[in-house]
Amino acid sequence: MGDDGRSGPLDHGTFRGHPGPTRYRDVACGRVDGDWTGRSVQLAGWVHRRRDKGGVKFILLRDRTGLVQLAFEPEHTPQRVMEAASSLNPEDVLWIRGDVESRPPEAVNPDMPTGAVEIRVREMEVLASSDPLPILVAIPPGEDLPSEELRLRHRVLDLRRPELQRNFVVRHLATNAARAALARQGFLEVETPFLTRRTPEGARDYLVPSRIHHGEFYALPQSPQLYKQLLMVSGFDRYFQIARCLRDEDLRADRQPEFTQIDVEMAFVGEDDVFAACEQMLVDMYAVTLDRAIPVPFPRMSWAEAMESYGTDKPDLRIEWRIHDLSEVLGGRGFGIIDGALADGGRARGIVVPGGGSLSRSRLDAINDMARAAGARGALWLKCTDDGYSGPAARAVDETAGARLQAEYGLSAGDLLVLVAGPDSESSPALDVLRRQLGTELGAAGEGEHWIWVTDFPLFEADPETGAPAASHHPFTMPVDVTAAELLAEPFAVRSRAYDLVLNGTELASGSIRCHVPELQRAILEVLGMTAEQVDARFGFLLEAFRYGVPPHGGFALGLDRLIAMMVGVSSLRDVIAFPKTTAARGLMEGAPSAVEADLLADLGLRLADAGGADGD
Amino acid sequence: MGDDGRSGPLDHGTFRGHPGPTRYRDVACGRVDGDWTGRSVQLAGWVHRRRDKGGVKFILLRDRTGLVQLAFEPEHTPQRVMEAASSLNPEDVLWIRGDVESRPPEAVNPDMPTGAVEIRVREMEVLASSDPLPILVAIPPGEDLPSEELRLRHRVLDLRRPELQRNFVVRHLATNAARAALARQGFLEVETPFLTRRTPEGARDYLVPSRIHHGEFYALPQSPQLYKQLLMVSGFDRYFQIARCLRDEDLRADRQPEFTQIDVEMAFVGEDDVFAACEQMLVDMYAVTLDRAIPVPFPRMSWAEAMESYGTDKPDLRIEWRIHDLSEVLGGRGFGIIDGALADGGRARGIVVPGGGSLSRSRLDAINDMARAAGARGALWLKCTDDGYSGPAARAVDETAGARLQAEYGLSAGDLLVLVAGPDSESSPALDVLRRQLGTELGAAGEGEHWIWVTDFPLFEADPETGAPAASHHPFTMPVDVTAAELLAEPFAVRSRAYDLVLNGTELASGSIRCHVPELQRAILEVLGMTAEQVDARFGFLLEAFRYGVPPHGGFALGLDRLIAMMVGVSSLRDVIAFPKTTAARGLMEGAPSAVEADLLADLGLRLADAGGADGD
Repeated sequence: MGDDGRSGPLDHGTFRGHPGPTRYRDVACGRVDGDWTGRSVQLAGWVHRRRDKGGVKFILLRDRTGLVQLAFEPEHTPQRVMEAASSLNPEDVLWIRGDVESRPPEAVNPDMPTGAVEIRVREMEVLASSDPLPILVAIPPGEDLPSEELRLRHRVLDLRRPELQRNFVVRHLATNAARAALARQGFLEVETPFLTRRTPEGARDYLVPSRIHHGEFYALPQSPQLYKQLLMVSGFDRYFQIARCLRDEDLRADRQPEFTQIDVEMAFVGEDDVFAACEQMLVDMYAVTLDRAIPVPFPRMSWAEAMESYGTDKPDLRIEWRIHDLSEVLGGRGFGIIDGALADGGRARGIVVPGGGSLSRSRLDAINDMARAAGARGALWLKCTDDGYSGPAARAVDETAGARLQAEYGLSAGDLLVLVAGPDSESSPALDVLRRQLGTELGAAGEGEHWIWVTDFPLFEADPETGAPAASHHPFTMPVDVTAAELLAEPFAVRSRAYDLVLNGTELASGSIRCHVPELQRAILEVLGMTAEQVDARFGFLLEAFRYGVPPHGGFALGLDRLIAMMVGVSSLRDVIAFPKTTAARGLMEGAPSAVEADLLADLGLRLADAGGADGD
Repeated sequence: MGDDGRSGPLDHGTFRGHPGPTRYRDVACGRVDGDWTGRSVQLAGWVHRRRDKGGVKFILLRDRTGLVQLAFEPEHTPQRVMEAASSLNPEDVLWIRGDVESRPPEAVNPDMPTGAVEIRVREMEVLASSDPLPILVAIPPGEDLPSEELRLRHRVLDLRRPELQRNFVVRHLATNAARAALARQGFLEVETPFLTRRTPEGARDYLVPSRIHHGEFYALPQSPQLYKQLLMVSGFDRYFQIARCLRDEDLRADRQPEFTQIDVEMAFVGEDDVFAACEQMLVDMYAVTLDRAIPVPFPRMSWAEAMESYGTDKPDLRIEWRIHDLSEVLGGRGFGIIDGALADGGRARGIVVPGGGSLSRSRLDAINDMARAAGARGALWLKCTDDGYSGPAARAVDETAGARLQAEYGLSAGDLLVLVAGPDSESSPALDVLRRQLGTELGAAGEGEHWIWVTDFPLFEADPETGAPAASHHPFTMPVDVTAAELLAEPFAVRSRAYDLVLNGTELASGSIRCHVPELQRAILEVLGMTAEQVDARFGFLLEAFRYGVPPHGGFALGLDRLIAMMVGVSSLRDVIAFPKTTAARGLMEGAPSAVEADLLADLGLRLADAGGADGD
C-alpha cells in the first residue's frame, strides 16, 4: 500500500462485519468517509507514514480497515501536541481526538476510501511507541520485501502488511462460506479428537507420549478419516469439519507439518451426491468471497484417459495439447529407438506443439534433458517446415507418416512434434513435464480455472522400490465390481471408486466411496501386507463398528490452505497461514521446537537416546 | 425415543439444513410427511424396531432426522420381500422402495412427525446387516442405560441414540451462531498452530518430540493465548477461533484432556467492549439454538463483593441467601469460639436460612461436618423459634443480638442461622458449600439462568502450599493503577483487570484486559519467580513483539463443551463430545494411547526410561 492508499486492500465489499466503536475509537480508520465531515472523532491506530510540509505535519494512521490522514496544523493543534507529533516513529500506536474536515479539492485522493477527508488533530496520546523496526511495514512501492527468513522471524510485523492481512480476510470469508454451504445441505460440524490411536496410513504420525501410561503414545491425526467413517456408522448422515491435520513428513517447499482440510463425509451416497455437495460448496465460496461464478458441474475424466492424454492424474487443462499414441504411424519404419521400444512392449507417444518450430535451438536441445530428468530415456523432436521435416526424429517420418501426422494430428508447417518412446511408466511423466513446460514457454496456457474430477483410479499401484501393492488413495476405498478372492488374486487389475478434484493441474481434493464391506476391507489390508493380527490391532475398532450396520458412505477432503492460496493468487502456503513453519519444521518467531528439562522427560518415562542427534537444519 | 416416536428429538425447528435426496433415498426418514401421500419413494436407514401383527409386519426405519413406519403386507409386498423382512434384525441397514399411504384414522400417531403415513414396501435390499448388539440403540422407555464404560467402548452404537445425537445438533447450531455473531462484529477467525513452543503457564503441556531436531519438543497448545495477543500486535484488531486446547492434567470426572474454547481477542478495548461482544454472541447462540432470550447486559460484581457475600468467586445467584459479617452483633458476648476467632483477626460470618428450622436433627448435625470438609474448623447453627433460640450457637445470642439479627438480617421464627468463625480463608469456602448445599436441600434455588461478570480479581494469590505469589488468572493480565516498582514491592495488594463470566455458579468464561506494558509484564513474571533469563527464554518472543507498537487489548475464552452441556441440560461433558476420553485419558473405543515400535522411538531419538512405568488405570 503506497502513500496514496490506492490498494485499500481490506475494504472488501462482501465483508460486511467490521470493527465497531470502542473505548478508544468512534470508528475504524478506513471507515472515516465523507459522512463524518464536521464531526469530532476519536481514532486509534498505527503510524503508517509521516510527512512534514511547511509547518504542517501529516500522518497516515493505519488499522486493519485502511488508512486515514491526520493533519497537525499550528492553527488547530495545541503546541504540546505539535511537538509530540514531531518525535513520532513509524508503527507507534496512537490515540487521537480531532475534527473531520473535507480536504481542499486539490488534495482529495479519489483512490483512497478516506481520501476526501482529513482529521485536524486536537488531542493525542501515544498508547505505545515502537523501537526502530527490524523490517518495514510500510514498504515503499517497487521495493523488494526483506528475506523470508527475516520476515518469518518477525512474523508479527510482517503480518501488519495489508497485502498479507487481506489473505486472512479472504480465508475467513471463504471458510465461513464453506461452512454455511455445507450446513444448508444438512451437514453437521462435529469435532474429532487430536489425541488419537496410531493407525499407520502412509505418512509418519506425530506422537505424543502419555504421562499416565508410560510407554504408550497418542498419535496426532493425519486426517479424521476413521472418525468420520465411524460417524457415518453412528448415523450422523452428513459430517464436516474444518480439520487441522498433522503429518511428520520430510518437508518440501510447499508442505507444512500442519495443514487444514475441509473434511466431509456422507452416508447413503454415490459419486454424484458427493460431487454435487462439493461443487455447491465451492460455488458458494467463490461467490461470497471473490464475487465470481464457477461453472458446475465440473467435467469428469477417468484416470485412464487422464494418463493417456495428459500423462498425469492431475492434468492442467489450461493447456489444450494432448498426448497421442503414434506407435502405428511411426513404428516399423526402421527407426531404431522407436522400433526397439515397440518390440519391448512400449509405445511411441507424442505431442504436437503448435508454433513450436519457433523455439531456439538451445531450447530444442533441452527437450531431451527435460525428459531424462523426468525419468525417461530421452525425447526426440522434429520440426515441420514448408520444406519437410528436420530434427532428431525426422528420419522416422516418411511420406506416409508425414501425411498422417498432418491429416490426423494437425501437424503443419511451423509446428514441433515431441516424441517419447518406451513404456508408459516412462513416457507419461516425461510428456507431462514437456507438455506443461513447453506450454508455458510458448504461452499456450489459457486463462481461467479448469476444474475437473478425475475418477476410476486403480485401487493399488506398485511401490516404486519394491513393486509391492500400495494403496493409490487410501486403504478404505471401495473397489469396483470385485470379490475378495478376485481382489487377492489380481490386485493390480482392480479399479476403485476413488476420485480427485483437480484445478489447473493442482490436486485440491481427494476422496472416495468407502469400502463398507468388512470382508473386502480385510482383503485390501491383506494385499497391503498386513496379517489378520495386524489388521485387528490397527483397524479392529473400525471393522468392529462395521459389524453393526454400516451404511454405504463416501466423502472427500479438500486442502484449504492450497485453495485459499489459489484464490488470493499467491504461490506459497506460508502466505495464507498465520504462523507457518519453515521447511525444517521450525517456528522461527516463537522458537519451536525447543529443548525441555530432563525431569519432564522422566515424568513421561522417556530418555534421550543420545546427546547429539541428527539436526535437519 | 419410544415406539411412538414422541420425542422426535432431532426435528429441530431452527435447523433448516437437512439431508436431501441421494442415490439411495428421495427423502430422509423423518421428513416423510403427509405431502408425500400417494407417491412412490425410496428410503434408507436403520431398523429401529420390528413388530409383527397378524400377517403384517411393521418396521420403524430410523435416520438422523427421525422415524418412519414401513408396512409389509401380503397384499402389496412381494412374497420374497415378506420373507426377507422376517429375518431382519435391529440395526440392519435397509434400502426400500414403496408407496406412501395415509394411515387409517385410528392408527395415526399425532406425536410423531411422520405419524400420519406409512410406507407400503414393494422392494427391499439389506445394505448391511447387524450382528447381535453389545448395547441397545432403541432402549425401551424407563430402562436404564448400559454402564458408561460399555457405552464408551461401543461409542459408535451409543452415538446412534437420538438423545445423544440431539446434543451434537445443538452444538453445531450454537457454534455456528457464535461464529456468525462474532463475524458480524468484525472478528476474523484465524487458525493458530498446534505445534507450538513450550511456555509453561500452569498446567502441564502435552509434548511432541521432533524427529528432525532430536532432543527438542513441540508443545500442544493449552490455549492460543500468546498467539492471539500477537495477532493483536499484528493489527488483526479482532480475532476469534473455536480452538481445541490440550492440557495434561490429572483428570477429574468433569475434565477432558482436550477441550474446545471460543477464543476471542480485541484491540483498542476496555472491559465494556469485551463484555458487550461476549454478551451479543451468547444472545445469538441462545436465540438461534434454543429460541430463548437471555437478558443483557449481565450484572457485574467485584471479586471482593462475591467473596464477601457468597464466599466464592463463582456465586450461584439462583440462591438468594448472602453471607453476613456478624462479628459485631455476636462478638464480645463471652462465646469462646467467636471471641477467639475475632481475637485472632478473624470474623464471625453467617447465613440466615429461611425455613431452615425444618431441617432434621441429623441434617443439622451434618452442618459442622460439611464445614470441616470444606476446610473450616467447624460451623455452628441456631434455630430461631417462637420460644427463642436453640442449637450450639444459641449461647452467643443475647437479647440485643437477637433483636439485631431479626431487625437487620431478617431472622425470624422457623429460620436457621449458620455461623462460621475464623479467618475468611476458612469461612468463605465453608459458607459457600453450606449455602449451596442447604439451598438445594431446602429448594431455595430459583429457576432460570443467572449470568454475572465477576471483576477486579487480585493479580496474585498465594500458592496454598508455599505461600508464594501465583497468577490468579494468568500472567498476561493488566494490573490496576500500579508501577512496576509498586508491583514488585507489594504484589498481593495489586488488583487486576481480570474477569470471569459465571452462570449459575459455573465459571463459563474467563478473560482480562492484557498487560501491554513490557516493564509491567516483566515485573509480573519476576514476582512469579522467573529470572530475567527465564523470562527471555520463555516469553522473549512476546516481549520482543511488544517493542514495535502494541495496542491495548483484551479478550476472553469461553468453555464451549461446558456451555453446550448446560444448554442441552446434561451434566457430563462426555455427552457433548463425540469421542471423549475416560478420566484416565484413554479412548476406549479406538484404544488410545497405545504402545509403538522401538524403531519409531529411535527415529525420534528417544528410549523408554524403564520397562514398567506407572499405570494410572
